[in-house]
Amino acid sequence: MIAVSVLQLKHIALQKEGRAIRYFEDFQVGERIELGSVKVTEEEIIAFASQYDPQPFHISPEQAKHSYYGGLIASGWHTVSLLMRLMVDALINDTISFGSPGVDEVRWLKPVRPNDTLHASLTIVDMAPAKRRAELGILTSSSEVFNQSGDLVLTLKGVHFFGRRPTQQARIREGAEAE
Amino acid sequence: MIAVSVLQLKHIALQKEGRAIRYFEDFQVGERIELGSVKVTEEEIIAFASQYDPQPFHISPEQAKHSYYGGLIASGWHTVSLLMRLMVDALINDTISFGSPGVDEVRWLKPVRPNDTLHASLTIVDMAPAKRRAELGILTSSSEVFNQSGDLVLTLKGVHFFGRRPTQQARIREGAEAE
Repeated sequence: MIAVSVLQLKHIALQKEGRAIRYFEDFQVGERIELGSVKVTEEEIIAFASQYDPQPFHISPEQAKHSYYGGLIASGWHTVSLLMRLMVDALINDTISFGSPGVDEVRWLKPVRPNDTLHASLTIVDMAPAKRRAELGILTSSSEVFNQSGDLVLTLKGVHFFGRRPTQQARIREGAEAE
Repeated sequence: MIAVSVLQLKHIALQKEGRAIRYFEDFQVGERIELGSVKVTEEEIIAFASQYDPQPFHISPEQAKHSYYGGLIASGWHTVSLLMRLMVDALINDTISFGSPGVDEVRWLKPVRPNDTLHASLTIVDMAPAKRRAELGILTSSSEVFNQSGDLVLTLKGVHFFGRRPTQQARIREGAEAE
């Protein structure tokens, strides 16, 4: 019952924008999804870090000048959060998302600086139906974030729980009952 | 020159509060550091997620009721960011921090909900001097975040670059020159 009500809300929301739900079955291993881009401002770097990562090279342009990094850089968690926002807008909000159990291998490869424009993409590296819950599929992804110079600044491996196509769920349940 | 100027600023800042710098040499493998606690409000959950992770179960109490989670939950990245803030206040701002190359095995084990109080701790699992830079030591940590019921809600493994004690750096440089 819960899944149906979420599905109905999602259908209505996406139909308004002329988009369709992407179910687990609509993805394939090897598929690369462009997530779009976002510009990072000094103001946002300082605002995020003042709240969640107040190290001098994230919050003080003056102290950052004299630091190892030679100038203000974004908190690594800010960069990850910006990737997440791109992922939600370009992908996750078109699915029935059941969240995520975790991520692996978060790597901050180059600093992100004020006025950088970040571009992100996600590649699907593995897919498996959930063993215990017929309505879920588990998708594993590898994400990359580049800056405007083409430098890779962030990579991470994510796991996503996405809803399966309802007809598929029904078939699985019938199969289970027949066993 | 840069390291000295950061050191001077850090000394002045910490002395004001009657605290001392913790150098790489001041830590030991197996040491557990309490990072304190933070209360999470519904307002902050919605504010973070509206900006960085706008999925319905993070931003809409009403839609969240009908979701898999049965109510509003914090973005996993919000929980990680709250851990980071505790880590900076209780530990990193007492060190000469040179940032981090990444983290591994981020695991969201239980949802974080409005008005939860999170307690965090960090255990040092490995330490090694940096191979190329005499002023740095590399510390590997395992962090845990519990809620007020004692449920483990988040774990992650981090890597930290911390400054070495200046006398130690000088000895290493002399050793390198003598070789």
